[in-house]
Amino acid sequence: MLNIRVPTLILDKPKCLENIRRMAEKAETSRVKFRPHFKTHQSAEIGNWFRSFNVSAITVSSVGMAHYFANQGWNDITIAFPVNIREMESINQLAGRIKLNILLVNPEPVHELNLKLSHEVGVFVKIDTGYNRTGISADNVKEITQILEHINKSAKLEFMGFLTHTGHTYKTNSTNEIKTLYTHAIEKLNCLKKTFSSEFKKITLSIGDTPSCSIINEFENIDEIRPGNFVFYDLMQQFLGACTFDQIAVSMACPVVAKNKERKELIIYGGAVHFSKEYIISKEQGITYGQVIGFTKKGWDFFETNNYLAALSQEHGVVKVSDQIFARFQTGDVLGIIPVHSCLTANLMKGYVTLEGDIIDHI
Amino acid sequence: MLNIRVPTLILDKPKCLENIRRMAEKAETSRVKFRPHFKTHQSAEIGNWFRSFNVSAITVSSVGMAHYFANQGWNDITIAFPVNIREMESINQLAGRIKLNILLVNPEPVHELNLKLSHEVGVFVKIDTGYNRTGISADNVKEITQILEHINKSAKLEFMGFLTHTGHTYKTNSTNEIKTLYTHAIEKLNCLKKTFSSEFKKITLSIGDTPSCSIINEFENIDEIRPGNFVFYDLMQQFLGACTFDQIAVSMACPVVAKNKERKELIIYGGAVHFSKEYIISKEQGITYGQVIGFTKKGWDFFETNNYLAALSQEHGVVKVSDQIFARFQTGDVLGIIPVHSCLTANLMKGYVTLEGDIIDHI
Repeated sequence: MLNIRVPTLILDKPKCLENIRRMAEKAETSRVKFRPHFKTHQSAEIGNWFRSFNVSAITVSSVGMAHYFANQGWNDITIAFPVNIREMESINQLAGRIKLNILLVNPEPVHELNLKLSHEVGVFVKIDTGYNRTGISADNVKEITQILEHINKSAKLEFMGFLTHTGHTYKTNSTNEIKTLYTHAIEKLNCLKKTFSSEFKKITLSIGDTPSCSIINEFENIDEIRPGNFVFYDLMQQFLGACTFDQIAVSMACPVVAKNKERKELIIYGGAVHFSKEYIISKEQGITYGQVIGFTKKGWDFFETNNYLAALSQEHGVVKVSDQIFARFQTGDVLGIIPVHSCLTANLMKGYVTLEGDIIDHI
Repeated sequence: MLNIRVPTLILDKPKCLENIRRMAEKAETSRVKFRPHFKTHQSAEIGNWFRSFNVSAITVSSVGMAHYFANQGWNDITIAFPVNIREMESINQLAGRIKLNILLVNPEPVHELNLKLSHEVGVFVKIDTGYNRTGISADNVKEITQILEHINKSAKLEFMGFLTHTGHTYKTNSTNEIKTLYTHAIEKLNCLKKTFSSEFKKITLSIGDTPSCSIINEFENIDEIRPGNFVFYDLMQQFLGACTFDQIAVSMACPVVAKNKERKELIIYGGAVHFSKEYIISKEQGITYGQVIGFTKKGWDFFETNNYLAALSQEHGVVKVSDQIFARFQTGDVLGIIPVHSCLTANLMKGYVTLEGDIIDHI
């Protein structure tokens, strides 16, 4: 085991590469474009690993992230976040050097874009297929027609297609439910494509979310997938049935700083500023911020699920464990935890250490 | 208003200074030592503001933070986190240059400390007065006696006193309940002081937590207070009755990127990577991640509490608003949000901008 002094985000590189390979291969077999979301890893080096799987176009969630990856040589980037007209200067800088796609979730920004864009950009129109966060409802053909007219009239905006994020898959109770939501979304997008096909010869249909893209084996009637979290997976994805425990490629290594015999608790150095406060609610344990693992020479082993991270303050974690695990770990030992949400944990940790001890960057 | 492009943490410096002044004055009147916790602001500059209120000793929550503030000239620091023996090298570096106090929450680390400490350090024994996170139960005199014997035998450890964190004040429903918890904790600490007074001439009793320290007007039978969050306060403290809305010194400025008329929602650029996922559960609104404010020329105004941050994804925030506020804010405008937990928000934002536009550092 590595010499761990403080909470450290451990990356199992072979698992991560296998996650990338599996998704890339599935996309290739289905002949859909694989435009992975890089907001999960936010790493130049991990980004580079995708190149060997013929990935050349990516998705990011902020203009800043787009700049970061453009500086790493990525020249086809979709910013899958409602265009923020307060960042026009920064958007123009990008649009001048790479193929940039932005996202319109409603018509309001078009006027400002026409006025201030210095280069042509691609535009995806965000369609709400049931997540109810952003986008024009798939049923609102009137508003979609309007926004397409606006785009058509604009010399600066090139219509790319319809994009959806089926984020409501995160609220499901079975993989069948995920499949149903995915299928409905695909149907809605294809219905729109048909409606507007006479007007636009090429309409790309783009879908995201790791649960769908993990569970669906063959992608049909869709042109592009944009999953992000699958690169690492995490406890939430396992909980949803989107991955197995063994596919999770990241874990936190945390020093044990105290034990409480009466409550069978291990107190770890590792809190909300390391894990984030994302949780799942399991039937047996209730609120869970992570799952206990034990590091081995080659990686980590899973314990029973009644060993879990039960509470977080700023720097402390309270880990509920069985008698057996309580006896196994002493103050000064290193405990492993699978985080609930790897994107947020990686964003807080700002770096990875592989099982071999190599340091991997994060923005 | 400042020129906001991306989510920005705004600091109202006069409110912050007034929060510091009030707490410092209360400590002085009560003749208790004011050893503020710097984990909330984590800022060299804000740390310096405390010096004009005669603060010379501070509290931090990690060894790294202790180094940071030692480099800023702070030479009396308590690390109020169970000593992590995996950081001995770093602890020794600190102990060689400043007056360092560490925390023992159980006897296990004493042997390692004796073996590896290169300089004498002060030791506070953490007493659990009901929070049930870490520390020896106040009633467990046997174990406290044991740990004090260990410390007494050690040439490297100087017993400073008993320290408690009444963090269970965060689970209360009234300020009276906070007072009761505080009073019980003080009683328990004084009982221990009496028990061990023949053996130790000087026993410092130290208490933390912003709710108690804000609500109690006169500190009696206690030697030291260690509040941290009070420097900014936040929505959670207001919810608990520890501060008024007007005393909250930080807010987030977030661009509005979309509106949804049907659901009366404003979508902001500002998500879990900016706010953290800390929430409160209000009777009226349920889960709330923040409270909407409107920026003015001199600061910000509060709106009705039915204008609130209702959901967060990585970069998006979904804000539920009244008809009136919905009409007031357009795509491209800047909306203000009071965060639920200023410590975690500041930790994510890594910097502040004052109302005057000055940039303030964060570790």
